[in-house]
Amino acid sequence: MKTAIYPGSFDPITLGHLDIIKRAAQIFDRVVVCVMVNDAKKPMFSLEERREMIARVTARFDNVTVDWSDGLLAEYAKQYDNSVIVKGLRAMSDFESEFQMALINRKLNRELDTLFLTAREKYTYLSSSIVKEMARYGADITDFVPREILEDIKKRSQYREVNAGGK
Amino acid sequence: MKTAIYPGSFDPITLGHLDIIKRAAQIFDRVVVCVMVNDAKKPMFSLEERREMIARVTARFDNVTVDWSDGLLAEYAKQYDNSVIVKGLRAMSDFESEFQMALINRKLNRELDTLFLTAREKYTYLSSSIVKEMARYGADITDFVPREILEDIKKRSQYREVNAGGK
Amino acid sequence: MKTAIYPGSFDPITLGHLDIIKRAAQIFDRVVVCVMVNDAKKPMFSLEERREMIARVTARFDNVTVDWSDGLLAEYAKQYDNSVIVKGLRAMSDFESEFQMALINRKLNRELDTLFLTAREKYTYLSSSIVKEMARYGADITDFVPREILEDIKKRSQYREVNAGGK
Amino acid sequence: MKTAIYPGSFDPITLGHLDIIKRAAQIFDRVVVCVMVNDAKKPMFSLEERREMIARVTARFDNVTVDWSDGLLAEYAKQYDNSVIVKGLRAMSDFESEFQMALINRKLNRELDTLFLTAREKYTYLSSSIVKEMARYGADITDFVPREILEDIKKRSQYREVNAGGK
Amino acid sequence: MKTAIYPGSFDPITLGHLDIIKRAAQIFDRVVVCVMVNDAKKPMFSLEERREMIARVTARFDNVTVDWSDGLLAEYAKQYDNSVIVKGLRAMSDFESEFQMALINRKLNRELDTLFLTAREKYTYLSSSIVKEMARYGADITDFVPREILEDIKKRSQYREVNAGGK
Amino acid sequence: MKTAIYPGSFDPITLGHLDIIKRAAQIFDRVVVCVMVNDAKKPMFSLEERREMIARVTARFDNVTVDWSDGLLAEYAKQYDNSVIVKGLRAMSDFESEFQMALINRKLNRELDTLFLTAREKYTYLSSSIVKEMARYGADITDFVPREILEDIKKRSQYREVNAGGK
Repeated sequence: MKTAIYPGSFDPITLGHLDIIKRAAQIFDRVVVCVMVNDAKKPMFSLEERREMIARVTARFDNVTVDWSDGLLAEYAKQYDNSVIVKGLRAMSDFESEFQMALINRKLNRELDTLFLTAREKYTYLSSSIVKEMARYGADITDFVPREILEDIKKRSQYREVNAGGK
Repeated sequence: MKTAIYPGSFDPITLGHLDIIKRAAQIFDRVVVCVMVNDAKKPMFSLEERREMIARVTARFDNVTVDWSDGLLAEYAKQYDNSVIVKGLRAMSDFESEFQMALINRKLNRELDTLFLTAREKYTYLSSSIVKEMARYGADITDFVPREILEDIKKRSQYREVNAGGK
Repeated sequence: MKTAIYPGSFDPITLGHLDIIKRAAQIFDRVVVCVMVNDAKKPMFSLEERREMIARVTARFDNVTVDWSDGLLAEYAKQYDNSVIVKGLRAMSDFESEFQMALINRKLNRELDTLFLTAREKYTYLSSSIVKEMARYGADITDFVPREILEDIKKRSQYREVNAGGK
Repeated sequence: MKTAIYPGSFDPITLGHLDIIKRAAQIFDRVVVCVMVNDAKKPMFSLEERREMIARVTARFDNVTVDWSDGLLAEYAKQYDNSVIVKGLRAMSDFESEFQMALINRKLNRELDTLFLTAREKYTYLSSSIVKEMARYGADITDFVPREILEDIKKRSQYREVNAGGK
Repeated sequence: MKTAIYPGSFDPITLGHLDIIKRAAQIFDRVVVCVMVNDAKKPMFSLEERREMIARVTARFDNVTVDWSDGLLAEYAKQYDNSVIVKGLRAMSDFESEFQMALINRKLNRELDTLFLTAREKYTYLSSSIVKEMARYGADITDFVPREILEDIKKRSQYREVNAGGK
Repeated sequence: MKTAIYPGSFDPITLGHLDIIKRAAQIFDRVVVCVMVNDAKKPMFSLEERREMIARVTARFDNVTVDWSDGLLAEYAKQYDNSVIVKGLRAMSDFESEFQMALINRKLNRELDTLFLTAREKYTYLSSSIVKEMARYGADITDFVPREILEDIKKRSQYREVNAGGK
C-alpha cells in the first residue's frame, strides 16, 4: 500500500489544498494530511481547530486521514512503509524552496521521495495568507475556501468596516 | 475621465516612484497617489509625513493628488468611476506578488484592472528599504530620492559614524 | 485622445489576446491592434488573413481598429499623438523579454511608454503556438480561440488521425 | 494498477532520466517510458535506436516497459486505466513549460494528472543536448550516461581532434 | 596585491561557504572573510564565536584571514587597495538580491566590483538557516558543516527528542 | 600571473562586453578575449572581422589580448596556467544557462573556475542580437556599441527605409 503524506500549515485549509488532496486520493492508496506545527508562526486557528476543519472538509474521501507533527517531516514519514510526500506547486516562487525541501528530506531519509502536483489555474495565486488577509477586511472569500469552514473563518476574523474612502 | 490610482507605502518616496508618477500623469487624466497604511510594518515616517512629502515632490504636476487608505485597495477604488491601478515593476522578484495582487483585486472588484509600467534601468534596484538602509549608515542617497526630501530623510536617519575598518 | 497600440503576431488571435483587447478598449480612447510582420517566422495564416480574423472578432468594439507594420514598433507609433504600447503578461518567462522590449522602445522613441496587463488565470498558459500545436493533432481548441475563427483554424490545420496508441 | 507514463525524447537517455525511472518504478506499479516523436527536431538516434537503448538500460527493472507515440500525450494515455504522467524537474527554466504542458494535458484529458519529481543535485544541469554537445567534442561523458550506451554515443558522435589552442 | 573580501553572516560557516573560500584563495592573493554584523537578526553564535570558528576551519589556508564589520561593506572595503567582493551564488533566488547589492556597492564605491562564484551542485541548497533548523531537530548535519565545528553546533542547538509519530 | 578568459561570440562586440573587459582588466593580470566559433549560428561578421574589431576597441588596454577557439572552452583554457573564465550576467534569463556552463566546465577541467560580473544597469538589456536587429531597421545604435565599430555595423546591416506607417 502506497501512502502519500501531504504536509502543511493549513491555517486554514483552502480550496487549493482540497484540490491537491482530491487528486492525490485518486492516485495513491492512502493520503495522510499532516498539519506541521511551526512554533515560529502564530496561527489564526489552533492545531486542534485546523485538524478538525480538515477532517470536516475531507470526510467524503474514504482514503484520506488527518494527522499532525511537530518534528521533522523526514522523521515523521518513517512510520509509514512505502510513503511519499506530495506537495502542490503554484507559482515559480514556490519552486526553489520546495525543491530545497525535497532534497533535504531525501538527504535525511533516503527512502523518502517528494512528488509535486501543479495547482489548477484558478488556484494559482491562492494561499492561506491571502484568505486571512481578505477575511480580515471582510472581503468575500467564498471562492477560496471550502464552504464547510466559511463561517469558522468569518467568526475568527476581526471584521473592520471598510468604507469607500478608507477614512 | 480616467483615474490612475498608484498605491504604495512610500516610506519614503524615491526617484523610482516619482518616475512612475510622472509617466502615469502623461498617460491618464488624473493620478491619485494613495499611501496604503499597513499596521504590520513600523514606518520611518508617519502617514502624515509621507503624504506631505509626496505632495511636496509632486506639486509641479497639475493632475496628481495624494490620498491614503487603511482598507482594501479594491474597495478604495470604488469611489472613482473609471479607475485603474498603476504599479511599477522593477525586477522579476516583484513580478509574482504583483501578478497575484492584480488577480485578487480584479476578483474583489471586477471593474478594477491593474496596469504595470517598467522601472527605468537606473531605478531597477531602487527601493525605499535600500534608501533607509543607506541613510542609516550615512551613505549618500542623492541619486535615489527627490532632492526636496533629502534633508527630511537625513534628519530622521540615525547617523552612525562609519569608519573604514568598521570597528 | 489616448491611443493604445497592441502589437503581436496574432497567428492566430486567441481568447487571451481578445481579453487584453477588450480590457484595453475599456481603458483607452482607441486601441490599434497591430500585426507585426516577422520575416523569420513562417506563419500559419497570411498577414491578410490575420488582419481579417482580428477585424472579425473585434467588430463589436467601436474603438478598436486593426493595422500592420513590417518596421520597428517604435517608429510605427510615431504616427499617433499620445500613444502607448499595451502588452499582456502571462508567466514569468514573458517578463524579461517584454521588459527588454519596453526599455528598447523607450530608448528609440522617448515619448513611447509600455503598459502591461496581466493575463486572466485561465489564459495564463495559452499561446498561439499551443493553439496551432493542438489543432495540428485535431484536439479540441474551443476554449482557446474566438468561436468566429474556429473553423478557419480547423481547415488550415493538417488533421492527423490520432489513435489511442499513437501507432 | 497505477501506471506512470514517463514521456520524453531520450536522444539519448541520460543518467538523469534513469534516476527518474528508477524512483518512479519504486512508487508506481508500472512505468511506461514513452519516446515522443517530434518531427521538428532531427535526432542523433532513430526512434528504433532510442527505444532499444532505453530497453537495454532499464532491463533490470521488472515493472518498466518502453513504448513510443507520435500523437498527443493526452490521447496516448487513454489506453491505460488509472495512469499519470511523470516528469523530472531540474531547474527553474524547466518549470514554466512543464507547468504549461501539465495544464494543457489535463485540459485535453480530464483524467490525466502530472506528477513531478525533482532531479538529484548532481543531475540538475544534465540534459541530452549537453551530452551530445560534449560527445561531439570528444569530451568524457562517463558521468552523464548509462555505461551500457556509452559506446553507442561515442560511435555516433563526430569526433573532432581538440587541441589545446583550438586552432 | 589583489584582495578578495568575502562577506556574510556565517552563523555558522557551512561547507558551502568553505568551498567558496577555498576557490577564492586559489584565484586571489588574499581572501578576507568578513563577518557582517546585522543587528536585526539574533544569531545562534556571537560575533566572537563566529570569527573563531571561521579561523579554525580556514587555518590551513595561508592567504585567508578573518575580520568583521558593523558598517557598510562599501566603506569597509576602502581600507584595502585593489579589492573586490566575492560572493557565492546558489539558486536563482539568490540572484536578484545579490545583483542589487553589487550595483549598490559599486554606486557607493566606484572602485569596488563584485565577483560571483557558483556553488557546487551538492551545496546548491545548503544554507546556515537549514543547518540551524536541522540541528534544532537533532538531525545529522555531518555533510553540511566543517567537521571542526560539528560539536559546537550540536552543543548550541536545543535538542528535542524527535519520535517517529511526532507526538 | 592570473589570466581571465572572456569567451563569447562578439558578433559584434557591444558596450556591455567592453565594460566587462575593462573591469576584468583591472582585476586580473591578463585578459584574453576569446571568440568562440559556433558552426550552428550564421554570424553577421566573420571570425577575422570580429577578432579585428575587438582588437581595435581594446587597443588601449595593455593587458588585453584577442584569441579564438572552435573547440571546448574547458580544453582551450588548459594552455594557460592559473586561468579563470569571466562572464557577464545581465538578467535572470542568463543565470541558469551560465550556471550550467560553469558546472560543466569545472566537470571537464577541475582546475577551471568561472567568475561572474554583473552588467551595469544601462547594459542590462543589451545584447549583440538586439544591436543587429536595430541596425537592420536603421535605428540609432550609438549608445550600444563602441564608436570605433559603428560604421562597420552600419555598412554591414541592410538598411531598410522605415516609414512611419510601416507600409
